[in-house]
Amino acid sequence: MGLIVQKFGGSSVADAEGMKRVAARIVATKKAGNQVVVVVSAMGDTTDELIELANAVTPIPQGRELDMLLTAGERISMAVLAMAINNLGFEALSFTGSQAGVITDSVHGKARIIDVTPGRIREAIDSGAIAIVAGFQGISQDTKDITTLGRGGSDTTAVALAAALDADVCEIYTDVDGVFSADPRVVPNARKLKTVTYEEMLELAAAGAKVLHLRCVEYARRFNLPIHVRSSFSPNEGTWVVENHPEGGTMEQAIISGVAHDKSEAKVTIVGVPDRTGIAARIFQAIADNDINVDMIVQNVSAAATGLTDISFTVPKAEGQKATGVLQRIQGEVGFASIIYDDTIGKLSLVGAGMRSHPGVTATFFASMADAGVNIEMISTSEIRISVIVREADVERAAKAAHSAFGLDADQIEAVVYGGTGR
Amino acid sequence: MGLIVQKFGGSSVADAEGMKRVAARIVATKKAGNQVVVVVSAMGDTTDELIELANAVTPIPQGRELDMLLTAGERISMAVLAMAINNLGFEALSFTGSQAGVITDSVHGKARIIDVTPGRIREAIDSGAIAIVAGFQGISQDTKDITTLGRGGSDTTAVALAAALDADVCEIYTDVDGVFSADPRVVPNARKLKTVTYEEMLELAAAGAKVLHLRCVEYARRFNLPIHVRSSFSPNEGTWVVENHPEGGTMEQAIISGVAHDKSEAKVTIVGVPDRTGIAARIFQAIADNDINVDMIVQNVSAAATGLTDISFTVPKAEGQKATGVLQRIQGEVGFASIIYDDTIGKLSLVGAGMRSHPGVTATFFASMADAGVNIEMISTSEIRISVIVREADVERAAKAAHSAFGLDADQIEAVVYGGTGR
Repeated sequence: MGLIVQKFGGSSVADAEGMKRVAARIVATKKAGNQVVVVVSAMGDTTDELIELANAVTPIPQGRELDMLLTAGERISMAVLAMAINNLGFEALSFTGSQAGVITDSVHGKARIIDVTPGRIREAIDSGAIAIVAGFQGISQDTKDITTLGRGGSDTTAVALAAALDADVCEIYTDVDGVFSADPRVVPNARKLKTVTYEEMLELAAAGAKVLHLRCVEYARRFNLPIHVRSSFSPNEGTWVVENHPEGGTMEQAIISGVAHDKSEAKVTIVGVPDRTGIAARIFQAIADNDINVDMIVQNVSAAATGLTDISFTVPKAEGQKATGVLQRIQGEVGFASIIYDDTIGKLSLVGAGMRSHPGVTATFFASMADAGVNIEMISTSEIRISVIVREADVERAAKAAHSAFGLDADQIEAVVYGGTGR
Repeated sequence: MGLIVQKFGGSSVADAEGMKRVAARIVATKKAGNQVVVVVSAMGDTTDELIELANAVTPIPQGRELDMLLTAGERISMAVLAMAINNLGFEALSFTGSQAGVITDSVHGKARIIDVTPGRIREAIDSGAIAIVAGFQGISQDTKDITTLGRGGSDTTAVALAAALDADVCEIYTDVDGVFSADPRVVPNARKLKTVTYEEMLELAAAGAKVLHLRCVEYARRFNLPIHVRSSFSPNEGTWVVENHPEGGTMEQAIISGVAHDKSEAKVTIVGVPDRTGIAARIFQAIADNDINVDMIVQNVSAAATGLTDISFTVPKAEGQKATGVLQRIQGEVGFASIIYDDTIGKLSLVGAGMRSHPGVTATFFASMADAGVNIEMISTSEIRISVIVREADVERAAKAAHSAFGLDADQIEAVVYGGTGR
């Protein structure tokens, strides 16, 4: 008995059968006495097909027009889902992002939500209807043009709408049972987490876990809105993403919540960099100016004899070539010796709020790596995360070893697949 | 050098190649120094595919949701067309019906335009851009819901927008060269008309010519807006639909502008109807209550001896069964003898503003039918039209005979196909 916002991704509503299944699920929530607002993504591969269509007429679609085009995707899915619910005898009304009051800035393709004014949604649910809202889209405050929110947009729409409506929970339906202590495809003993904190979820997402996008978790944390990540294929409880673990959580709560790994990055090492003030700034300004996303950065102390140092950083493999190109262009000015590019690395991260109050986590972690014969090439830490760079071929063995070392292995193996989420 | 509204149907923009061809055409108009507003339909079969999708989840889609769904079609085509124009180096901005200020009543699926407030369109073209507007759609004045205009909707959008913008002309692009004196597939000697009056075009459309829809012609007549019907495949002049034929037109203007035929109707005859006041009203009220569209009605004088008469009327074949069902239900109350249903008829119509000032048209017409051995079963006339019902098998022969009898045959046969128009 409350107000529930439910978000279904494109794979859940890929065809008419999926629509009917999701409609039945929504109606069940309504029948249980709740007010229900549903956020839905475009059906299956619709977005990719629309992008293909755009590319058939122009190599560089204008942002405004591409957003206009892509938002047709959710328009189709939300109308069909509303019809499928109506067909079950329940009233459902669909609303575009603009109609739902999702107001954004004017950055086409990756607009940020400025405000949500869900007057029409409130009116619809107060009249007893189920409101279906297009995910991923909004309307620009300044230009009144249609915008899209970029990756993870539908999750963000759901959380933002839930916050604006003061909902009890935002349920994110996905094709996995929840958030796991590790990727079950790699660590068969991984177990589903009952709860994970916003902070942990942010670190896990940044470390490569693909269940929820950073933006939506940030949004939920800001408004302290509980997210329930659960499967659209089973009625089981999933994982609750909340402010704190229940009852303080220090007694029974594991120190480490999860192990995440990521094989999508490459390592760039700049050899023989003059150790002078402003040099690192110059390098990373050039990288940033080219919209390259840097993850870890490590600089060793310089050898006193030479006054030279080495700087290593990681970037998405897709941006590796661009990064080395940028560096080559500034080599003369900066005066470093050479560049080494290595795309056979992997990143392993341990995340857990318990890390704060438990010293020795690093030692246990590094010992488990040594026992597994895994060499650590780079290290980076935050308050509740430790990440290491290892050989790509060692990543999965390293993940299993760390998972066991911190007692995360489940008694029961859950037969699920830890996959990506919709947009 | 003016303001031109151009409308392209779904078959002109069915794929990327069509989009590029239409984009080039639009850009040529812009280059010639005009301000250009384009109204576009959904690509190819998109609308049918969306209806199929709706039917896959429910047998009876709600009107509001079906309109939401179908309007995704024009959203896609207008964005892609804008991109294709941008790709040629010209600025193009797409607008939904709502953004273009197309304000309608709330009748989903066949909304009527109440007002057009094209402030954003005016702003776009004044800034030098080409404005691309979604045809067929609007926004309800009362509920702020998305509506569609029903059959012929995109043509109506184009004419309404042209009127609101005080455009110089509304160009309707189609897959034929213009309006012909008869269907060239049936009458190979048919010739393209240089001009046709609103009144003639209305009668031709009502008589079965499919080039323009009644609604858009009515709208153009109300605002005295010239329509130029022309081919999207050739640069040739098409047919101008205007208030009057040039220079009064009585001297050289043919008496008859065109011959239209229609094989989509069926004839229902009610036999032995008591000839009493109110009986016909009772019958046609029952027909109207069931949303059946009656075209011609003929009642013979009653035989004095019996006080009984026969009433015949025509309806679309698709509604024939419903019509006879309605009549069977009121048979006891009305007290007629029997019903005869005949779906092997055809309708032939002569249309021409010159008919008013030229007596003898009917005699010439009927003589040509007799010469061709065609029997006339029903007759109906308006001020500028004569329609007859004949055997379906005789319709095409009758059309050729009438076309020749009024001197409409062209010296040159134009190799075009007289086809239907988009929505």
